[in-house]
Amino acid sequence: MSVFQEQVSETAAAREVSSFLQKKRKLFDSQQYQRTFRLDTQKTLSVLHVIGTVLKVNLNRSAPPSSKFFSVKCTPSVQYRISPPPQETAPFSPTPLNGNSVLLISMDRASHFENDSKLSVQYYGEKKEVLGRAILHLTAVEISLDVDADRDGHVERNNPNKGSWTWGPSGHGAILLVNCDSERTYAKQQDSEQAHVSRVSDLKDMSLMVLRTKGPAKLPGGYKLAMHISQGDAESVRIFRAKSSEVTNNPLTQLFYGTFVKDFPLVLSSEVLSQEVPYLGNTAEMNFYVEGLRFPDKDFDGLISINLSLLEPMSAGFPETPIFTDRVVFRVAPWIMTPNTLNPVEVFVCSTSDNYQFLKGMRNLVQKSGYKLKVCHEYMNRGDRWMQDELEFGYIDSPHHRFPVVLDSPRDGKLMNFPYDVLLGPDFGYVTRVANNEVVSSLDSFGNLEVSPPVSVNGKNYPMGRIIIGVAFPTASQGRNMTKVVQDFLWAQKVQEPIALFSDWLLVGHVDEFMTFVPAPDRKGFRLLLASPDAGYKLFRGLQNDGHGQAIMFEGQGEAEEITVDAILKDEILQAENNYVQSCIDWNRDVLKSELGLDDEDIIDLPILFKLPEMNRAVAYYPDMVNMIVLGKNLGIPKPFGPKVNGRCALEAEMCSLMSGLGLSCTFIDDFASYHMLLGEVHCGSNVRREFFDFKWWNLEM
Amino acid sequence: MSVFQEQVSETAAAREVSSFLQKKRKLFDSQQYQRTFRLDTQKTLSVLHVIGTVLKVNLNRSAPPSSKFFSVKCTPSVQYRISPPPQETAPFSPTPLNGNSVLLISMDRASHFENDSKLSVQYYGEKKEVLGRAILHLTAVEISLDVDADRDGHVERNNPNKGSWTWGPSGHGAILLVNCDSERTYAKQQDSEQAHVSRVSDLKDMSLMVLRTKGPAKLPGGYKLAMHISQGDAESVRIFRAKSSEVTNNPLTQLFYGTFVKDFPLVLSSEVLSQEVPYLGNTAEMNFYVEGLRFPDKDFDGLISINLSLLEPMSAGFPETPIFTDRVVFRVAPWIMTPNTLNPVEVFVCSTSDNYQFLKGMRNLVQKSGYKLKVCHEYMNRGDRWMQDELEFGYIDSPHHRFPVVLDSPRDGKLMNFPYDVLLGPDFGYVTRVANNEVVSSLDSFGNLEVSPPVSVNGKNYPMGRIIIGVAFPTASQGRNMTKVVQDFLWAQKVQEPIALFSDWLLVGHVDEFMTFVPAPDRKGFRLLLASPDAGYKLFRGLQNDGHGQAIMFEGQGEAEEITVDAILKDEILQAENNYVQSCIDWNRDVLKSELGLDDEDIIDLPILFKLPEMNRAVAYYPDMVNMIVLGKNLGIPKPFGPKVNGRCALEAEMCSLMSGLGLSCTFIDDFASYHMLLGEVHCGSNVRREFFDFKWWNLEM
Repeated sequence: MSVFQEQVSETAAAREVSSFLQKKRKLFDSQQYQRTFRLDTQKTLSVLHVIGTVLKVNLNRSAPPSSKFFSVKCTPSVQYRISPPPQETAPFSPTPLNGNSVLLISMDRASHFENDSKLSVQYYGEKKEVLGRAILHLTAVEISLDVDADRDGHVERNNPNKGSWTWGPSGHGAILLVNCDSERTYAKQQDSEQAHVSRVSDLKDMSLMVLRTKGPAKLPGGYKLAMHISQGDAESVRIFRAKSSEVTNNPLTQLFYGTFVKDFPLVLSSEVLSQEVPYLGNTAEMNFYVEGLRFPDKDFDGLISINLSLLEPMSAGFPETPIFTDRVVFRVAPWIMTPNTLNPVEVFVCSTSDNYQFLKGMRNLVQKSGYKLKVCHEYMNRGDRWMQDELEFGYIDSPHHRFPVVLDSPRDGKLMNFPYDVLLGPDFGYVTRVANNEVVSSLDSFGNLEVSPPVSVNGKNYPMGRIIIGVAFPTASQGRNMTKVVQDFLWAQKVQEPIALFSDWLLVGHVDEFMTFVPAPDRKGFRLLLASPDAGYKLFRGLQNDGHGQAIMFEGQGEAEEITVDAILKDEILQAENNYVQSCIDWNRDVLKSELGLDDEDIIDLPILFKLPEMNRAVAYYPDMVNMIVLGKNLGIPKPFGPKVNGRCALEAEMCSLMSGLGLSCTFIDDFASYHMLLGEVHCGSNVRREFFDFKWWNLEM
Repeated sequence: MSVFQEQVSETAAAREVSSFLQKKRKLFDSQQYQRTFRLDTQKTLSVLHVIGTVLKVNLNRSAPPSSKFFSVKCTPSVQYRISPPPQETAPFSPTPLNGNSVLLISMDRASHFENDSKLSVQYYGEKKEVLGRAILHLTAVEISLDVDADRDGHVERNNPNKGSWTWGPSGHGAILLVNCDSERTYAKQQDSEQAHVSRVSDLKDMSLMVLRTKGPAKLPGGYKLAMHISQGDAESVRIFRAKSSEVTNNPLTQLFYGTFVKDFPLVLSSEVLSQEVPYLGNTAEMNFYVEGLRFPDKDFDGLISINLSLLEPMSAGFPETPIFTDRVVFRVAPWIMTPNTLNPVEVFVCSTSDNYQFLKGMRNLVQKSGYKLKVCHEYMNRGDRWMQDELEFGYIDSPHHRFPVVLDSPRDGKLMNFPYDVLLGPDFGYVTRVANNEVVSSLDSFGNLEVSPPVSVNGKNYPMGRIIIGVAFPTASQGRNMTKVVQDFLWAQKVQEPIALFSDWLLVGHVDEFMTFVPAPDRKGFRLLLASPDAGYKLFRGLQNDGHGQAIMFEGQGEAEEITVDAILKDEILQAENNYVQSCIDWNRDVLKSELGLDDEDIIDLPILFKLPEMNRAVAYYPDMVNMIVLGKNLGIPKPFGPKVNGRCALEAEMCSLMSGLGLSCTFIDDFASYHMLLGEVHCGSNVRREFFDFKWWNLEM
């Protein structure tokens, strides 16, 4: 009897058990946390018990032959329940043992010392003579693998929902960033490419995960903690550990660059799926840093589970048994695009030997608007002026951190090194998709990848808009397309569900040749602008009607032959070509109305004519005003060089009139020789990095 | 005016329009089916109109300059609506034209002849003088691509839900089978491997899809119908067309084997993503046959869309414009396993040079139970007797057809050709997964792949049970596993969500070495049987207590040394080994209880001892009674050759006593020399093809 604190009367213990049982009835009743455990009347057993779980003992299994009754005693730190509940009997009278007698054992406080708690079961024969006693020594620990499952930027304690992931404002589950930026600015490499932590600053791109433990100074002999992931998840995640909690708090250590690799040892990776982690003893927290390695894609839904198990020793040569597993789930943050309605941060253009006029116009516009202009010089762009086409700016977001990420197109023109060599850097990520066995066409340029402002369509909300790409008609037996690798990537991000338009009717084939979005103070907060030959002809016929038939287009532009309004209207081939173009744009108009939930009042038709010089595919007849740059309320529009009425270009006047109703100011930029004649315009030749959405993607209702 | 049927007064037409508008207000108000259309005052236009859609005309676009009013006239077959609705004006008085005047045009009956319907818009100037007239000739067609979206085995007409797929008894969406059987029985090949229909009987493995059209005898010049699928879906589906509706109805044609290829031309495949399909004219139905090519897997969610578009001609050299698209969605049926609680159909065993005794026992049992025994002879099994391990029987199901499908293991022992060469045939499908860069271990044998009976777990129903596989502990740094390709396949089927147990503690490593399910008349309809060394020791100690310590095991079995009960109980090493085994089984017991929602009362412990001869991995000490074959209420159990009490084997007696409570009858089969000594038993050496579930997988609530 010496193993028990005799001063605790059994009735006092019974009271405590009763109160505990009410508190923890749910725990005892749940299957989830019950562990089958065996007692032994031959020898004293020791067990490490995890707070929050229940040991379930089949009393019959360990009963000596001929046992008919049993009784249970324990120290106050231990709670138990007998099932089926014993009938009321006299106090201290043993309970009848039957075939399915079960003892549930639990503890609610961590132990200070090994084996500081005890329980015994005594077995009796027919005449209540003692036949044997099974003694159990218990040590209790608290173990919790913790993440920011409530998405407030802090790692809370043992969130009950940490093991699953749901969308929406009342959703839960932690978030992981792909560590696709580069802490280094020279000899760059995406941080996810290297399997070590080279700078402390890199830790903020990872998700903090905390292992909280409470118990004796050391685990009982042979018990271990192990962290583990599945083979499938290991392709997408890497886990580092903070060797000591001091490191990150001490700014001095940031000076000693070389020391971090060993301060943050790699725990799990595709090479190591399971590894022991230290138990620090007493009340302790150990920090882990979880690094995302790949974006969601066709074969990866973005969800990752990380497990922490307590291992119980077997004999030498046997694998340890995981007797308790805590599990957390992360979702990898998607890549998010930013529509024209978000405020700009930086504007990017190329400087070439022949675009001084354009550059000057852009510089003035950007300065006036109060943003930063970044010029990519010729040593880098090697004459490739299509800043829009080589890359798309986006970002990734989590409750703890967010940063811009450039999507590099498989286009790979002479600007191909710009995204990696210039943009990639600290807190500026990079992602690309390589078209392995696919033909890369002009439709892979990112003038063909846009995103709408936030919309609501038949009750479904897209608070971050919808991605828009251009392809061939799905019914066309031949036609150009965007590569499947890029399309798969875009669809897999999920939060801006893409729409495929028909852009293969254009020689260059980009959606930005016939559409854009501008902010508006009313209605849905924006307007869709569409190129419209009908609107163009209407304007030209109106000019003719008003006696301006002899007004001249392309006046003084050496690159294009001057032509009168009358001559344009007389050109029946041009009219037929534009009828065709209008039908192509109308087809897209119908898709956009349906997929973005737009009314005709949400759309403005811009007077733009096209022509079909070759391959039966269209190019803009004069600078394509819809191919504009949108900087807040300031629009940078290709100067159309239209017919002049009273000294003012009628196309510019119409454009200004249409936009001024929305409070937008038009600046016309001369891109005629350096862009328009090369089949692009202002938008094709620029790119804008914008502010992030206030809306958090994880609050989407899916 | 001659184009109009003058006898129809405009007021009569107006009445009809008003009634139509009430009926079809929803159609006119919906964005979904509206198509932007342009009128022309310069020339008469013709258009093919699809019933159920709306043409939307911006009246301003085609208005001659200075137009201030307009009026609309049409034949009774045409309905229109003006938006914004015109103010009440005098009858026949034209409507004022403003910037956003829109005309919505619809038709509700298919045309008998091309251009048999007309509509005109007349434009007026300030003084109501006629400025121009736009005339439109209309031809109406009905087009519907139809499938069995309500899952009743019949292709209904234009189901409004055919374009999406949802689970559950009130769900919708059509179902597709993988055409993985072989209509031929010689020179076999899975039908999905060949891109043609070789026999009419193959059509029933495909899903019928009907194109219903109604309209004039021919489509107006240049209009076409085209069927199309996406590049992604094309890997998973193939579509054939019935050239004439006679073929399938005429049994005589079945005699002319060679004619079917041209009777059922291939329409769509991975080579052809879009193809024109004929318009039959008047009221017609054309049958298509949709063939599934691959099962759901890690990179394929099982959903496939098929589109049918009406193409409008452009000028020569331009792609035709899809002006209407109808879309249907299929889900590929998952591969489904059959638990022991389903009735057997056929029992498979191998005949070898040394298993006569076993075969005789099996033959008696199967005949007694009333099922068919199929013996795989030595020329085929080449000495490989492990019929359980090379394959798993399952099936696929759809509302129109279902058949068994064998999953061939990557184990590939000498039985490797049996599933393909013997089982594959008409209405008997085949599927396998090839472990390309993975190590295939003993855990890839399908004695390690089982399925539970239907269960309900914390309110979640699994009406077809849950798949059970065995692997190493997830925390083990080394250990054998089931190949990832097979695991990915099993998880992707979704309808029997798998559970991973720990089986790597066994030398052979199969879950069927320590567990099985038997039917039961009460509780959940089944019991989980678990091997239990504790129950074994309890039984042996009871024998000893009752004075049978000198009873002999393995009596008369030359292959194993005889041993007494006393000697077994005295062997401390054996006891220690069995304590370890019990802890491994208890670990699995806890997982099974939690994942299948079982109580202890749902589990029966069978008295079975193990030993650890090598590699610290366990094998059964005597024939492993849990490794049984379950044929309805008859169990075929390895004869344990246990100690005899009063001439009867105590292990058999205990087994019979445990099972008789469930109304199950035990037949003990001598597999000692030919299976047990080779580390397998009755279950390992047999396989059972069972009846299908009554439950339909698409009725699952996901």
